[in-house]
Amino acid sequence: MNDLFQGKLHVVNVGLASFADPIARAGGEVTQLDWAPPGAGEIEVARGLARLLGQTSVAAANEKAFAAYTAARPVLEGIASAGDVIPGIGERTILHSGPPIAWTKMCGPMRGAIIGAMLFERWATTVDEAARLASGGGISFSPCHDYSAVGPMAGIISPSMPVWIVRNGNGGNRAFSNLNEGLGKVLRFGANSAEVIDRLDWMRAVLAPTLGQALNTLGELELKPLIAQALHMGDEVHNRNAAASSLLLKRLVPAMLRSGAKTADLAAVVDFIGGNDHFFLNISMAAAKVMLDAAAGISRSSMVTAMCRNGVEFGIRVSGSGSHWFTAAAPRVDGLYFPGYSIADAAGDLGDSAITETAGIGGFAMAAAPAIVKFVGGSSADALANTLAMRHITLGVNNAFTLASLDFSGTPAGIDVAKVVDTRILPVINTGIAHRDPGIGQIGAGVTRAPMACFTAAVLELAKLLS
Amino acid sequence: MNDLFQGKLHVVNVGLASFADPIARAGGEVTQLDWAPPGAGEIEVARGLARLLGQTSVAAANEKAFAAYTAARPVLEGIASAGDVIPGIGERTILHSGPPIAWTKMCGPMRGAIIGAMLFERWATTVDEAARLASGGGISFSPCHDYSAVGPMAGIISPSMPVWIVRNGNGGNRAFSNLNEGLGKVLRFGANSAEVIDRLDWMRAVLAPTLGQALNTLGELELKPLIAQALHMGDEVHNRNAAASSLLLKRLVPAMLRSGAKTADLAAVVDFIGGNDHFFLNISMAAAKVMLDAAAGISRSSMVTAMCRNGVEFGIRVSGSGSHWFTAAAPRVDGLYFPGYSIADAAGDLGDSAITETAGIGGFAMAAAPAIVKFVGGSSADALANTLAMRHITLGVNNAFTLASLDFSGTPAGIDVAKVVDTRILPVINTGIAHRDPGIGQIGAGVTRAPMACFTAAVLELAKLLS
Repeated sequence: MNDLFQGKLHVVNVGLASFADPIARAGGEVTQLDWAPPGAGEIEVARGLARLLGQTSVAAANEKAFAAYTAARPVLEGIASAGDVIPGIGERTILHSGPPIAWTKMCGPMRGAIIGAMLFERWATTVDEAARLASGGGISFSPCHDYSAVGPMAGIISPSMPVWIVRNGNGGNRAFSNLNEGLGKVLRFGANSAEVIDRLDWMRAVLAPTLGQALNTLGELELKPLIAQALHMGDEVHNRNAAASSLLLKRLVPAMLRSGAKTADLAAVVDFIGGNDHFFLNISMAAAKVMLDAAAGISRSSMVTAMCRNGVEFGIRVSGSGSHWFTAAAPRVDGLYFPGYSIADAAGDLGDSAITETAGIGGFAMAAAPAIVKFVGGSSADALANTLAMRHITLGVNNAFTLASLDFSGTPAGIDVAKVVDTRILPVINTGIAHRDPGIGQIGAGVTRAPMACFTAAVLELAKLLS
Repeated sequence: MNDLFQGKLHVVNVGLASFADPIARAGGEVTQLDWAPPGAGEIEVARGLARLLGQTSVAAANEKAFAAYTAARPVLEGIASAGDVIPGIGERTILHSGPPIAWTKMCGPMRGAIIGAMLFERWATTVDEAARLASGGGISFSPCHDYSAVGPMAGIISPSMPVWIVRNGNGGNRAFSNLNEGLGKVLRFGANSAEVIDRLDWMRAVLAPTLGQALNTLGELELKPLIAQALHMGDEVHNRNAAASSLLLKRLVPAMLRSGAKTADLAAVVDFIGGNDHFFLNISMAAAKVMLDAAAGISRSSMVTAMCRNGVEFGIRVSGSGSHWFTAAAPRVDGLYFPGYSIADAAGDLGDSAITETAGIGGFAMAAAPAIVKFVGGSSADALANTLAMRHITLGVNNAFTLASLDFSGTPAGIDVAKVVDTRILPVINTGIAHRDPGIGQIGAGVTRAPMACFTAAVLELAKLLS
């Protein structure tokens, strides 16, 4: 033992860095090896991980889920009123983003948007009247996800709103999303003033029918090649949809011109879409939803099929546990704030748009979109690093979505709750940030992470289901 | 001396690696330092370099030229017939790409394209008749560059062809380029069959007037922000113009709808532009030409103001030597060939499109366009490396054109002939490859380099002008 301390020491320290630091300070050579006990030392979580990561039946289920996700072929089928096309939606139902939440618990922007939707539906004529009706139990609230739908930010869909219909060409399941209103004062950030309702009226009366006619003329539009092309054009197809929106418009314009629509309507529609680089976002989300729903409900699979936020809670669904929500408090986002705003003004993380990350695009494909760091923060090296990190928590790569800057490797996709908990690497999400009060709108954007507690709870539940 | 050979040797070898190799083979430690004598050992070149690189008057002239280039503000002004708008162009003049060349010396694609232009002008009714007229001296041939114009590949512009007009909003000089015909059998690759002439007729009769009306409705279009946006969307704006073409179309469509054009014409025009991801190339070239012409003719400046090829010779112009051409044989491009073709089928390097590289975009901005390596060859790392290498031979960076993947640094721009000869790093050019015979068209694409002899000759001439 004495001999040991006579010779020159080289120490390898495993785990807590505080043991290594004094050695280095005393002039010793030390190599720090990052390590933490499985499940962060929680014995039940560690046991759950051991079961999930060790079972070939789980691996087989994940392979099946991942294959269903990659085989899905989202096609843009058309546009219709939510009430006409979403199965089972009630007459006085309003869909919202994230996991289930009661009116009394909702964040400001979500309440504001619901009031706006009620004014738009003419269920009320004033904000106060709408708020009374909502709090009085006259309206039924459900997550979009319970109706195969997704909506960005507040994610409000009411029966007479037009929705995109995206169908899985290889399976037949459908998903729905509302139409993007642009930036500024918009419903999805909780605004409900006259200009917001007027725009929604125009979208229902002019935009949707014009686009619907164009889609009828065009025929079904394959979305995977369009998304793949946008990924080669600097989009990550969540917070950057400039290329995808342009590509969509390029496909729609000739069809619109041939559909017999009025020239004045066409000009207004083209101006509206051309002026909104986020226009494709809602289609991207519905495409992601269709791909992930194809992978849902596969017994024993630990693959995440949805991540979403209602501004108060963050929720995930996992293939092997069906429609069960694993929730945790929605974090506030430490992002890039517009001048005059800070994190103190922010609502909790909000919106169904994290369905894009769940499907391997968005933050997972940030390597495709170095320019987005001007919007969400960080450097182009961070964008690459985020994509590379996601390889450690995913079941594979999606070769339909390749990343030119990583020599055309596929985007990491198919988040495995067991890998997340085992590596303690959290899924990265590019997100817009809403003001906590309704009507103010977007106040920033940033890169955030899904909360660990959702994944830990999922590991425990899936391990229990294996018993 | 003997002591020296007793001790352990570490050798530093400067220059020829063949002196280092035997030492390494004998087990010695050797550090190889790449070095070559200035001007590759040619004493006159070395003297010329010393004069150019040492004189403050040259540095001041280069600063002035570079400032004029960066201050230029290309705006898309409109469309007109070449004969109506290009100053001094004669009635029976045909402009071609590259430095001056006689009919008898021209490569196959250029002759084919000239014959096509003559058929289009109705100066002849058959290929034979046109060839006889061309060889008989009935037509005057001049480089596009002599008329403030640029054209891709064969670069043929005849009097009744429509041309884009790009004006320098900060100086007033103008540049012109023809309209892009798309891929396949097209004039610029030497095709001249009926379908080619029919398309040119339609472009003159329908496309150009429709676009002209739209531009009148839209007003002048600032090109620098559009190019900058395209660089953030995966274009390098030479061989990849997918984003720029989409962005242009997005701006034009609302204006076209308001300009009162016939719906059938609009649909055809939108289909044509929407189906051609290279449509913006010719505008990009005219913008580059306008920026570089602003920097031309500044006494003592060693900044390159044009690089171009006629399929036989490669030529450059330098600011301090005005319209003088420094030429060398045009290399054949060792690129990615389409199935069934090889370098043996290729024409020599061809076209004025290297004006984009001269202006700091194209190959110089490859870091913006990792997806282009599927088209021109190499890996995404090569794309970054090409941009970084160009920093060694340029006078500065153009901060109007930032590269997201290099943390928004500007593209390297303002090639200095002295730096090229001193570092022996040749300007990189992304290029399409034409078949050596007319009418076959594009057979590949690749990354090529400008020939050193042009730059060496320029160094000698500029040094002489300093005397």
